[in-house]
Amino acid sequence: MIKILLSNDDGIHAVGIRTLAERLSSQYEVYVVAPDRERSATGHALTLHKPLRVEEIDLGGEIAGAYAVTGTPSDCIKIALNAVLEVKPDIVVSGINHGPNLGADILYSGTVSAALEGALLGVPSVAVSLVNGQDKNADFRPGADFIAEFVPQVVEAQLPPKTLLNVNMPGVSFSEVAGIKITSLGIRMYTDTYEKRLDPRNQVYYWLAGEIIDDSDEAEDSDVMALRNNFISVTPVTFDMTNWKLLETYRDQFDSNFKHLTETP
Amino acid sequence: MIKILLSNDDGIHAVGIRTLAERLSSQYEVYVVAPDRERSATGHALTLHKPLRVEEIDLGGEIAGAYAVTGTPSDCIKIALNAVLEVKPDIVVSGINHGPNLGADILYSGTVSAALEGALLGVPSVAVSLVNGQDKNADFRPGADFIAEFVPQVVEAQLPPKTLLNVNMPGVSFSEVAGIKITSLGIRMYTDTYEKRLDPRNQVYYWLAGEIIDDSDEAEDSDVMALRNNFISVTPVTFDMTNWKLLETYRDQFDSNFKHLTETP
Repeated sequence: MIKILLSNDDGIHAVGIRTLAERLSSQYEVYVVAPDRERSATGHALTLHKPLRVEEIDLGGEIAGAYAVTGTPSDCIKIALNAVLEVKPDIVVSGINHGPNLGADILYSGTVSAALEGALLGVPSVAVSLVNGQDKNADFRPGADFIAEFVPQVVEAQLPPKTLLNVNMPGVSFSEVAGIKITSLGIRMYTDTYEKRLDPRNQVYYWLAGEIIDDSDEAEDSDVMALRNNFISVTPVTFDMTNWKLLETYRDQFDSNFKHLTETP
Repeated sequence: MIKILLSNDDGIHAVGIRTLAERLSSQYEVYVVAPDRERSATGHALTLHKPLRVEEIDLGGEIAGAYAVTGTPSDCIKIALNAVLEVKPDIVVSGINHGPNLGADILYSGTVSAALEGALLGVPSVAVSLVNGQDKNADFRPGADFIAEFVPQVVEAQLPPKTLLNVNMPGVSFSEVAGIKITSLGIRMYTDTYEKRLDPRNQVYYWLAGEIIDDSDEAEDSDVMALRNNFISVTPVTFDMTNWKLLETYRDQFDSNFKHLTETP
Protein backbone atom coordinates (compact mmCIF):
# COMPACT_ATOMS: atom_id res chain seq x y z
CA MET A 1 0.00 0.00 0.00
CA ILE A 2 1.29 3.47 -0.87
CA LYS A 3 2.49 5.37 2.22
CA ILE A 4 1.71 9.09 2.24
CA LEU A 5 3.14 11.82 4.47
CA LEU A 6 0.72 14.75 4.66
CA SER A 7 1.56 18.25 5.83
CA ASN A 8 0.44 21.83 5.22
CA ASP A 9 0.92 25.42 6.41
CA ASP A 10 -2.61 26.14 7.66
CA GLY A 11 -2.09 23.87 10.66
CA ILE A 12 -3.13 20.32 11.48
CA HIS A 13 -6.67 21.34 12.36
CA ALA A 14 -7.42 23.09 9.05
CA VAL A 15 -10.29 21.75 6.97
CA GLY A 16 -8.07 21.37 3.89
CA ILE A 17 -5.68 18.83 5.41
CA ARG A 18 -8.42 17.08 7.38
CA THR A 19 -10.53 16.54 4.26
CA LEU A 20 -7.48 15.28 2.36
CA ALA A 21 -6.33 13.00 5.19
CA GLU A 22 -9.77 11.43 5.51
CA ARG A 23 -10.14 10.84 1.77
CA LEU A 24 -6.62 9.45 1.25
CA SER A 25 -6.72 7.19 4.32
CA SER A 26 -9.62 5.22 2.83
CA GLN A 27 -7.22 4.05 0.14
CA TYR A 28 -3.64 4.53 1.38
CA GLU A 29 -1.48 4.42 4.53
CA VAL A 30 -1.58 8.06 5.67
CA TYR A 31 0.64 9.84 8.19
CA VAL A 32 -0.02 13.48 9.07
CA VAL A 33 2.83 15.60 10.45
CA ALA A 34 1.76 19.24 10.35
CA PRO A 35 2.21 22.54 12.21
CA ASP A 36 0.19 22.86 15.41
CA ARG A 37 -1.17 26.19 14.14
CA GLU A 38 -1.35 28.40 11.07
CA ARG A 39 2.04 29.09 9.46
CA SER A 40 1.19 30.80 6.18
CA ALA A 41 3.75 32.86 4.23
CA THR A 42 6.56 31.41 6.32
CA GLY A 43 8.51 30.58 3.18
CA HIS A 44 11.08 27.86 3.51
CA ALA A 45 11.97 28.61 7.13
CA LEU A 46 13.66 26.15 9.48
CA THR A 47 13.66 26.30 13.27
CA LEU A 48 17.28 26.22 14.44
CA HIS A 49 17.39 28.25 17.61
CA LYS A 50 14.70 26.64 19.70
CA PRO A 51 13.42 23.14 20.40
CA LEU A 52 10.50 21.53 18.62
CA ARG A 53 7.67 19.72 20.38
CA VAL A 54 5.80 16.88 18.73
CA GLU A 55 2.36 15.89 19.99
CA GLU A 56 0.53 12.80 18.80
CA ILE A 57 -3.04 13.61 17.89
CA ASP A 58 -6.09 11.48 17.14
CA LEU A 59 -7.54 12.60 13.84
CA GLY A 60 -9.92 9.65 13.83
CA GLY A 61 -10.79 7.46 10.87
CA GLU A 62 -8.20 5.20 9.35
CA ILE A 63 -5.26 7.60 9.60
CA ALA A 64 -2.12 5.62 10.54
CA GLY A 65 -0.61 8.41 12.65
CA ALA A 66 -0.98 12.14 13.21
CA TYR A 67 1.45 14.55 14.89
CA ALA A 68 1.27 18.29 15.60
CA VAL A 69 4.66 20.05 15.53
CA THR A 70 5.52 23.45 17.03
CA GLY A 71 7.36 24.45 13.87
CA THR A 72 7.15 25.44 10.23
CA PRO A 73 6.04 23.23 7.32
CA SER A 74 9.72 22.57 6.45
CA ASP A 75 10.37 21.56 10.08
CA CYS A 76 7.45 19.14 9.90
CA ILE A 77 8.76 17.28 6.86
CA LYS A 78 12.34 17.22 8.13
CA ILE A 79 11.41 15.92 11.58
CA ALA A 80 8.83 13.48 10.16
CA LEU A 81 11.40 11.85 7.87
CA ASN A 82 14.28 11.97 10.35
CA ALA A 83 12.75 11.41 13.77
CA VAL A 84 8.98 10.84 13.97
CA LEU A 85 7.99 8.29 11.32
CA GLU A 86 9.16 4.70 11.51
CA VAL A 87 8.32 4.08 7.87
CA LYS A 88 9.63 5.87 4.79
CA PRO A 89 6.74 7.44 2.87
CA ASP A 90 6.47 6.93 -0.88
CA ILE A 91 5.23 10.47 -1.37
CA VAL A 92 4.85 13.78 0.45
CA VAL A 93 1.63 15.70 -0.12
CA SER A 94 1.30 19.24 1.24
CA GLY A 95 -2.16 20.76 1.47
CA ILE A 96 -4.87 21.24 0.60
CA ASN A 97 -3.96 24.89 1.07
CA HIS A 98 -6.67 27.40 1.85
CA GLY A 99 -6.05 29.67 -1.15
CA PRO A 100 -4.01 29.58 -4.38
CA ASN A 101 -0.24 29.10 -4.75
CA LEU A 102 0.40 30.37 -8.26
CA GLY A 103 3.35 31.97 -10.05
CA ALA A 104 5.86 33.83 -7.90
CA ASP A 105 3.59 33.28 -4.86
CA ILE A 106 5.24 29.91 -4.39
CA LEU A 107 8.42 31.64 -3.21
CA TYR A 108 6.55 32.67 -0.05
CA SER A 109 4.40 29.59 0.30
CA GLY A 110 4.65 27.36 3.34
CA THR A 111 2.61 24.74 1.50
CA VAL A 112 5.12 24.57 -1.34
CA SER A 113 8.07 24.71 1.10
CA ALA A 114 6.89 21.47 2.74
CA ALA A 115 6.86 19.77 -0.67
CA LEU A 116 10.23 21.32 -1.44
CA GLU A 117 11.66 19.88 1.78
CA GLY A 118 10.28 16.47 0.82
CA ALA A 119 11.92 16.69 -2.61
CA LEU A 120 15.21 17.85 -1.04
CA LEU A 121 15.14 14.74 1.13
CA GLY A 122 14.55 12.52 -1.88
CA VAL A 123 10.81 11.80 -1.60
CA PRO A 124 8.46 12.52 -4.54
CA SER A 125 6.46 15.56 -3.44
CA VAL A 126 3.30 17.39 -4.39
CA ALA A 127 1.86 20.68 -3.15
CA VAL A 128 -1.88 21.19 -3.62
CA SER A 129 -3.95 24.33 -3.16
CA LEU A 130 -7.58 25.27 -3.57
CA VAL A 131 -8.01 28.63 -5.28
CA ASN A 132 -11.12 29.65 -3.33
CA GLY A 133 -9.97 27.81 -0.19
CA GLN A 134 -10.21 30.93 1.94
CA ASP A 135 -13.97 31.08 1.44
CA LYS A 136 -16.01 29.87 4.36
CA ASN A 137 -17.94 27.39 2.24
CA ALA A 138 -15.00 26.18 0.15
CA ASP A 139 -15.32 22.52 -0.78
CA PHE A 140 -12.04 20.62 -0.50
CA ARG A 141 -13.55 17.30 -1.59
CA PRO A 142 -12.99 17.63 -5.35
CA GLY A 143 -9.32 18.39 -4.64
CA ALA A 144 -9.07 15.42 -2.30
CA ASP A 145 -10.67 13.17 -4.92
CA PHE A 146 -8.25 14.37 -7.55
CA ILE A 147 -5.21 13.85 -5.31
CA ALA A 148 -6.41 10.34 -4.49
CA GLU A 149 -6.20 9.55 -8.21
CA PHE A 150 -3.04 11.58 -8.78
CA VAL A 151 -0.89 10.02 -6.01
CA PRO A 152 -0.18 6.65 -7.68
CA GLN A 153 0.63 8.48 -10.94
CA VAL A 154 3.27 10.56 -9.19
CA VAL A 155 4.74 7.62 -7.29
CA GLU A 156 5.04 5.72 -10.56
CA ALA A 157 6.33 8.68 -12.60
CA GLN A 158 9.60 8.95 -10.65
CA LEU A 159 10.14 12.68 -10.60
CA PRO A 160 13.62 13.93 -11.54
CA PRO A 161 15.87 15.22 -8.74
CA LYS A 162 15.22 18.67 -7.22
CA THR A 163 11.68 18.74 -8.59
CA LEU A 164 8.20 18.83 -7.10
CA LEU A 165 4.73 19.17 -8.57
CA ASN A 166 2.61 22.19 -7.69
CA VAL A 167 -1.11 21.57 -8.13
CA ASN A 168 -3.86 24.18 -7.96
CA MET A 169 -7.54 23.25 -7.93
CA PRO A 170 -10.21 25.60 -9.31
CA GLY A 171 -13.02 26.44 -6.91
CA VAL A 172 -15.70 24.45 -8.70
CA SER A 173 -17.34 21.05 -8.34
CA PHE A 174 -15.58 18.08 -9.93
CA SER A 175 -18.02 17.98 -12.87
CA GLU A 176 -17.28 21.63 -13.68
CA VAL A 177 -13.50 21.13 -13.83
CA ALA A 178 -12.47 21.86 -17.43
CA GLY A 179 -9.58 19.37 -17.34
CA ILE A 180 -5.91 19.26 -16.35
CA LYS A 181 -3.19 21.48 -17.76
CA ILE A 182 0.56 21.02 -17.44
CA THR A 183 1.58 24.60 -16.76
CA SER A 184 4.46 27.02 -16.20
CA LEU A 185 4.61 29.38 -13.23
CA GLY A 186 2.86 32.66 -14.01
CA ILE A 187 3.90 36.15 -12.93
CA ARG A 188 1.29 37.15 -10.37
CA MET A 189 2.72 40.49 -9.32
CA TYR A 190 1.26 42.53 -6.47
CA THR A 191 1.05 46.25 -5.92
CA ASP A 192 2.77 45.86 -2.52
CA THR A 193 1.06 48.80 -0.91
CA TYR A 194 1.90 49.37 2.74
CA GLU A 195 -0.84 51.07 4.66
CA LYS A 196 0.64 53.58 7.10
CA ARG A 197 -1.50 53.90 10.22
CA LEU A 198 -1.40 55.23 13.75
CA ASP A 199 -1.83 52.90 16.71
CA PRO A 200 -3.88 53.84 19.82
CA ARG A 201 -0.74 55.49 21.23
CA ASN A 202 -0.24 57.56 18.05
CA GLN A 203 2.76 55.53 16.97
CA VAL A 204 3.17 54.74 13.27
CA TYR A 205 2.82 51.20 12.00
CA TYR A 206 2.72 49.66 8.53
CA TRP A 207 0.61 46.80 7.20
CA LEU A 208 1.11 45.05 3.89
CA ALA A 209 -2.01 45.40 1.75
CA GLY A 210 -0.90 44.23 -1.69
CA GLU A 211 -3.37 43.62 -4.46
CA ILE A 212 -2.87 41.55 -7.60
CA ILE A 213 -1.84 43.71 -10.54
CA ASP A 214 -3.94 43.21 -13.68
CA ASP A 215 -2.40 40.05 -15.04
CA SER A 216 -3.28 40.32 -18.71
CA ASP A 217 0.38 39.65 -19.51
CA GLU A 218 0.25 36.13 -18.12
CA ALA A 219 1.45 33.47 -20.55
CA GLU A 220 -1.22 31.29 -22.13
CA ASP A 221 0.40 28.14 -20.69
CA SER A 222 0.74 29.57 -17.16
CA ASP A 223 -0.89 28.24 -14.02
CA VAL A 224 -2.67 31.58 -13.56
CA MET A 225 -4.42 31.29 -16.95
CA ALA A 226 -5.27 27.61 -16.41
CA LEU A 227 -7.07 28.39 -13.14
CA ARG A 228 -8.87 31.31 -14.68
CA ASN A 229 -10.41 28.82 -17.12
CA ASN A 230 -11.28 26.30 -14.39
CA PHE A 231 -8.52 23.86 -15.24
CA ILE A 232 -6.50 21.99 -12.63
CA SER A 233 -2.89 23.21 -13.05
CA VAL A 234 0.05 20.85 -12.57
CA THR A 235 3.33 22.77 -12.62
CA PRO A 236 6.67 20.96 -12.45
CA VAL A 237 8.80 23.13 -10.14
CA THR A 238 12.56 22.83 -9.81
CA PHE A 239 14.81 24.23 -7.13
CA ASP A 240 17.96 23.84 -9.16
CA MET A 241 18.33 27.59 -8.95
CA THR A 242 21.63 28.07 -10.76
CA ASN A 243 21.07 30.36 -13.76
CA TRP A 244 23.10 28.18 -16.12
CA LYS A 245 22.74 30.49 -19.11
CA LEU A 246 24.07 33.52 -17.23
CA LEU A 247 26.80 31.34 -15.77
CA GLU A 248 28.03 30.54 -19.29
CA THR A 249 27.82 34.19 -20.33
CA TYR A 250 29.76 35.35 -17.30
CA ARG A 251 32.43 32.74 -17.83
CA ASP A 252 32.88 33.91 -21.41
CA GLN A 253 33.21 37.53 -20.28
CA PHE A 254 35.13 36.66 -17.17
CA ASP A 255 38.47 38.27 -17.92
CA SER A 256 37.01 41.60 -18.94
CA ASN A 257 34.34 41.73 -16.23
CA PHE A 258 35.74 40.27 -13.07
CA LYS A 259 39.33 39.21 -13.20
CA HIS A 260 40.84 42.59 -12.34
CA LEU A 261 38.79 42.75 -9.13
CA THR A 262 41.23 40.57 -7.25
CA GLU A 263 44.39 41.56 -9.07
CA THR A 264 46.90 43.41 -6.98
CA PRO A 265 47.49 46.85 -8.42
CA MET B 1 26.28 58.47 -7.43
CA ILE B 2 25.18 54.85 -7.16
CA LYS B 3 22.41 54.36 -4.58
CA ILE B 4 22.61 51.15 -2.55
CA LEU B 5 19.97 49.54 -0.37
CA LEU B 6 21.59 47.31 2.26
CA SER B 7 19.87 44.62 4.27
CA ASN B 8 20.70 41.32 5.95
CA ASP B 9 19.28 38.61 8.20
CA ASP B 10 21.61 38.95 11.17
CA GLY B 11 19.98 42.22 12.18
CA ILE B 12 20.93 45.86 11.73
CA HIS B 13 23.43 45.78 14.58
CA ALA B 14 25.49 42.85 13.23
CA VAL B 15 29.13 43.47 12.47
CA GLY B 16 28.77 42.19 8.91
CA ILE B 17 26.27 44.81 7.76
CA ARG B 18 27.89 47.58 9.80
CA THR B 19 31.30 46.95 8.24
CA LEU B 20 29.75 46.85 4.78
CA ALA B 21 27.66 49.99 5.33
CA GLU B 22 30.66 51.94 6.55
CA ARG B 23 32.87 50.86 3.65
CA LEU B 24 30.27 51.45 0.94
CA SER B 25 29.14 54.82 2.30
CA SER B 26 32.61 56.28 1.71
CA GLN B 27 31.98 55.83 -2.01
CA TYR B 28 28.22 55.50 -2.60
CA GLU B 29 24.84 56.71 -1.33
CA VAL B 30 23.92 54.01 1.18
CA TYR B 31 20.55 53.24 2.79
CA VAL B 32 20.25 50.49 5.38
CA VAL B 33 16.85 48.86 5.97
CA ALA B 34 17.36 45.72 8.02
CA PRO B 35 15.69 43.58 10.66
CA ASP B 36 15.82 44.94 14.20
CA ARG B 37 17.20 41.59 15.37
CA GLU B 38 18.57 38.29 14.15
CA ARG B 39 16.36 36.55 11.57
CA SER B 40 18.47 33.67 10.27
CA ALA B 41 16.96 30.68 8.47
CA THR B 42 13.69 32.54 8.02
CA GLY B 43 13.65 31.66 4.33
CA HIS B 44 11.60 33.92 2.13
CA ALA B 45 8.98 34.74 4.75
CA LEU B 46 6.66 37.74 4.60
CA THR B 47 4.80 39.27 7.54
CA LEU B 48 1.12 39.42 6.60
CA HIS B 49 -0.80 39.01 9.83
CA LYS B 50 0.70 41.69 12.01
CA PRO B 51 1.91 45.26 11.62
CA LEU B 52 5.51 46.27 11.00
CA ARG B 53 7.32 49.00 12.90
CA VAL B 54 10.09 51.03 11.32
CA GLU B 55 12.57 52.88 13.51
CA GLU B 56 15.12 55.34 12.12
CA ILE B 57 18.55 54.64 13.54
CA ASP B 58 21.79 56.58 13.54
CA LEU B 59 24.54 54.32 12.25
CA GLY B 60 26.96 57.21 12.11
CA GLY B 61 29.42 58.00 9.34
CA GLU B 62 28.18 58.97 5.92
CA ILE B 63 25.24 56.59 5.74
CA ALA B 64 22.32 58.36 4.04
CA GLY B 65 19.62 56.65 6.12
CA ALA B 66 19.22 53.61 8.36
CA TYR B 67 16.01 51.93 9.51
CA ALA B 68 15.35 48.94 11.78
CA VAL B 69 12.25 46.93 10.86
CA THR B 70 10.36 44.46 13.08
CA GLY B 71 10.18 41.97 10.24
CA THR B 72 12.00 39.50 8.03
CA PRO B 73 14.67 40.32 5.42
CA SER B 74 11.99 40.08 2.69
CA ASP B 75 9.78 42.49 4.65
CA CYS B 76 12.70 44.92 4.88
CA ILE B 77 13.28 45.07 1.13
CA LYS B 78 9.57 45.27 0.30
CA ILE B 79 8.86 48.04 2.78
CA ALA B 80 12.07 49.90 1.88
CA LEU B 81 11.18 50.03 -1.81
CA ASN B 82 7.46 50.67 -1.29
CA ALA B 83 7.17 52.87 1.78
CA VAL B 84 10.40 53.89 3.52
CA LEU B 85 12.87 55.12 0.88
CA GLU B 86 12.18 58.24 -1.13
CA VAL B 87 14.77 57.29 -3.75
CA LYS B 88 14.92 54.18 -5.91
CA PRO B 89 18.15 52.29 -5.26
CA ASP B 90 20.30 51.11 -8.17
CA ILE B 91 21.16 47.90 -6.38
CA VAL B 92 20.19 45.81 -3.36
CA VAL B 93 23.03 44.25 -1.37
CA SER B 94 22.22 41.75 1.39
CA GLY B 95 24.91 40.90 3.91
CA ILE B 96 27.62 40.45 4.81
CA ASN B 97 26.15 37.31 6.33
CA HIS B 98 27.81 35.74 9.36
CA GLY B 99 28.43 32.33 7.80
CA PRO B 100 28.26 30.74 4.33
CA ASN B 101 25.25 30.54 2.00
CA LEU B 102 26.25 27.79 -0.39
CA GLY B 103 24.38 25.23 -2.50
CA ALA B 104 20.95 24.20 -1.26
CA ASP B 105 21.47 26.31 1.88
CA ILE B 106 20.23 29.32 -0.05
CA LEU B 107 16.70 27.91 0.04
CA TYR B 108 16.65 28.62 3.79
CA SER B 109 18.71 31.78 3.75
CA GLY B 110 17.28 35.07 4.94
CA THR B 111 20.28 36.82 3.37
CA VAL B 112 19.50 35.40 -0.06
CA SER B 113 15.76 36.01 0.40
CA ALA B 114 16.38 39.76 0.78
CA ALA B 115 18.26 39.77 -2.53
CA LEU B 116 15.53 37.62 -4.06
CA GLU B 117 12.91 40.16 -2.98
CA GLY B 118 14.98 42.94 -4.54
CA ALA B 119 15.23 41.03 -7.81
CA LEU B 120 11.46 40.28 -7.73
CA LEU B 121 10.85 44.02 -7.43
CA GLY B 122 13.11 44.73 -10.41
CA VAL B 123 16.29 45.94 -8.68
CA PRO B 124 19.66 44.27 -9.44
CA SER B 125 20.48 42.31 -6.30
CA VAL B 126 23.45 40.66 -4.65
CA ALA B 127 23.69 38.46 -1.55
CA VAL B 128 27.09 38.24 0.14
CA SER B 129 28.25 35.93 2.89
CA LEU B 130 31.50 35.37 4.77
CA VAL B 131 32.28 31.68 5.17
CA ASN B 132 33.90 32.02 8.61
CA GLY B 133 31.60 34.90 9.59
CA GLN B 134 30.37 33.09 12.68
CA ASP B 135 33.86 33.19 14.21
CA LYS B 136 34.34 35.80 16.88
CA ASN B 137 37.34 37.32 15.13
CA ALA B 138 35.97 37.10 11.59
CA ASP B 139 37.16 39.99 9.43
CA PHE B 140 34.42 41.40 7.20
CA ARG B 141 36.67 44.06 5.65
CA PRO B 142 37.99 42.04 2.69
CA GLY B 143 34.38 41.22 1.75
CA ALA B 144 33.37 44.87 2.09
CA ASP B 145 36.31 45.91 -0.10
CA PHE B 146 35.35 43.36 -2.73
CA ILE B 147 31.69 44.44 -2.76
CA ALA B 148 32.76 48.09 -3.11
CA GLU B 149 34.49 47.11 -6.36
CA PHE B 150 31.78 44.67 -7.42
CA VAL B 151 28.77 47.01 -7.07
CA PRO B 152 29.37 49.17 -10.18
CA GLN B 153 30.05 46.01 -12.21
CA VAL B 154 26.66 44.61 -11.26
CA VAL B 155 24.81 47.87 -11.84
CA GLU B 156 26.35 48.08 -15.30
CA ALA B 157 25.89 44.39 -16.16
CA GLN B 158 22.08 44.60 -16.14
CA LEU B 159 21.13 41.25 -14.71
CA PRO B 160 18.43 39.31 -16.59
CA PRO B 161 14.97 39.12 -14.99
CA LYS B 162 14.36 36.80 -12.03
CA THR B 163 18.08 36.57 -11.30
CA LEU B 164 20.36 37.56 -8.44
CA LEU B 165 24.04 37.04 -7.70
CA ASN B 166 25.06 35.01 -4.66
CA VAL B 167 28.57 35.83 -3.46
CA ASN B 168 30.54 33.93 -0.82
CA MET B 169 33.83 35.22 0.56
CA PRO B 170 36.52 32.86 1.87
CA GLY B 171 37.67 33.53 5.41
CA VAL B 172 41.11 34.82 4.50
CA SER B 173 42.77 38.20 4.06
CA PHE B 174 42.38 39.90 0.69
CA SER B 175 45.92 39.03 -0.39
CA GLU B 176 45.24 35.34 0.26
CA VAL B 177 42.10 35.24 -1.90
CA ALA B 178 42.87 32.89 -4.80
CA GLY B 179 40.63 34.78 -7.23
CA ILE B 180 37.00 34.86 -8.33
CA LYS B 181 35.07 31.92 -9.73
CA ILE B 182 31.72 32.02 -11.51
CA THR B 183 30.08 29.00 -9.92
CA SER B 184 27.03 26.75 -9.84
CA LEU B 185 25.16 25.94 -6.63
CA GLY B 186 26.65 22.90 -4.92
CA ILE B 187 24.80 20.16 -3.06
CA ARG B 188 25.68 20.71 0.59
CA MET B 189 23.51 18.04 2.16
CA TYR B 190 23.13 17.66 5.92
CA THR B 191 22.61 14.61 8.07
CA ASP B 192 19.49 16.25 9.60
CA THR B 193 19.83 14.58 12.95
CA TYR B 194 17.25 15.58 15.53
CA GLU B 195 18.48 15.25 19.07
CA LYS B 196 15.70 13.92 21.27
CA ARG B 197 16.00 15.27 24.83
CA LEU B 198 14.01 15.62 28.03
CA ASP B 199 13.21 19.05 29.43
CA PRO B 200 13.36 19.84 33.20
CA ARG B 201 9.76 18.60 33.46
CA ASN B 202 10.63 15.31 31.73
CA GLN B 203 8.82 16.27 28.54
CA VAL B 204 10.37 15.30 25.20
CA TYR B 205 11.72 17.95 22.87
CA TYR B 206 13.69 17.78 19.62
CA TRP B 207 16.52 19.98 18.39
CA LEU B 208 17.91 20.02 14.87
CA ALA B 209 21.61 19.15 14.94
CA GLY B 210 22.45 18.52 11.28
CA GLU B 211 26.01 18.14 10.14
CA ILE B 212 27.39 18.54 6.63
CA ILE B 213 27.66 15.19 4.87
CA ASP B 214 31.05 14.43 3.30
CA ASP B 215 30.78 16.47 0.15
CA SER B 216 33.31 14.75 -2.08
CA ASP B 217 30.61 14.57 -4.75
CA GLU B 218 30.46 18.33 -5.19
CA ALA B 219 30.95 19.48 -8.80
CA GLU B 220 34.30 21.04 -9.65
CA ASP B 221 32.58 24.29 -10.75
CA SER B 222 30.38 24.52 -7.61
CA ASP B 223 30.44 27.29 -5.04
CA VAL B 224 31.33 24.74 -2.35
CA MET B 225 34.52 23.72 -4.19
CA ALA B 226 35.46 27.34 -4.99
CA LEU B 227 35.32 28.30 -1.32
CA ARG B 228 37.28 25.25 -0.28
CA ASN B 229 40.10 26.58 -2.47
CA ASN B 230 39.84 30.13 -1.10
CA PHE B 231 38.16 31.57 -4.19
CA ILE B 232 35.36 34.14 -4.02
CA SER B 233 32.31 32.44 -5.56
CA VAL B 234 29.81 34.38 -7.68
CA THR B 235 26.76 32.23 -8.45
CA PRO B 236 24.01 33.50 -10.76
CA VAL B 237 20.78 32.34 -9.11
CA THR B 238 17.41 32.28 -10.83
CA PHE B 239 13.98 31.96 -9.30
CA ASP B 240 12.30 31.03 -12.56
CA MET B 241 11.43 27.73 -10.93
CA THR B 242 9.41 26.09 -13.69
CA ASN B 243 11.08 22.81 -14.65
CA TRP B 244 10.76 23.44 -18.39
CA LYS B 245 12.22 20.11 -19.41
CA LEU B 246 9.78 18.10 -17.33
CA LEU B 247 6.97 20.34 -18.52
CA GLU B 248 7.73 19.33 -22.13
CA THR B 249 7.96 15.66 -21.18
CA TYR B 250 4.65 15.72 -19.33
CA ARG B 251 2.92 17.48 -22.19
CA ASP B 252 4.16 14.81 -24.58
CA GLN B 253 2.87 12.06 -22.29
CA PHE B 254 -0.21 13.96 -21.27
CA ASP B 255 -2.92 11.75 -22.78
CA SER B 256 -1.55 8.53 -21.33
CA ASN B 257 -0.60 9.96 -17.94
CA PHE B 258 -3.16 12.48 -16.90
CA LYS B 259 -6.11 12.91 -19.22
CA HIS B 260 -8.22 10.11 -17.80
CA LEU B 261 -8.05 11.63 -14.31
CA THR B 262 -10.79 14.12 -15.06
CA GLU B 263 -12.79 12.01 -17.49
CA THR B 264 -16.17 10.98 -16.22
CA PRO B 265 -16.43 7.22 -16.18
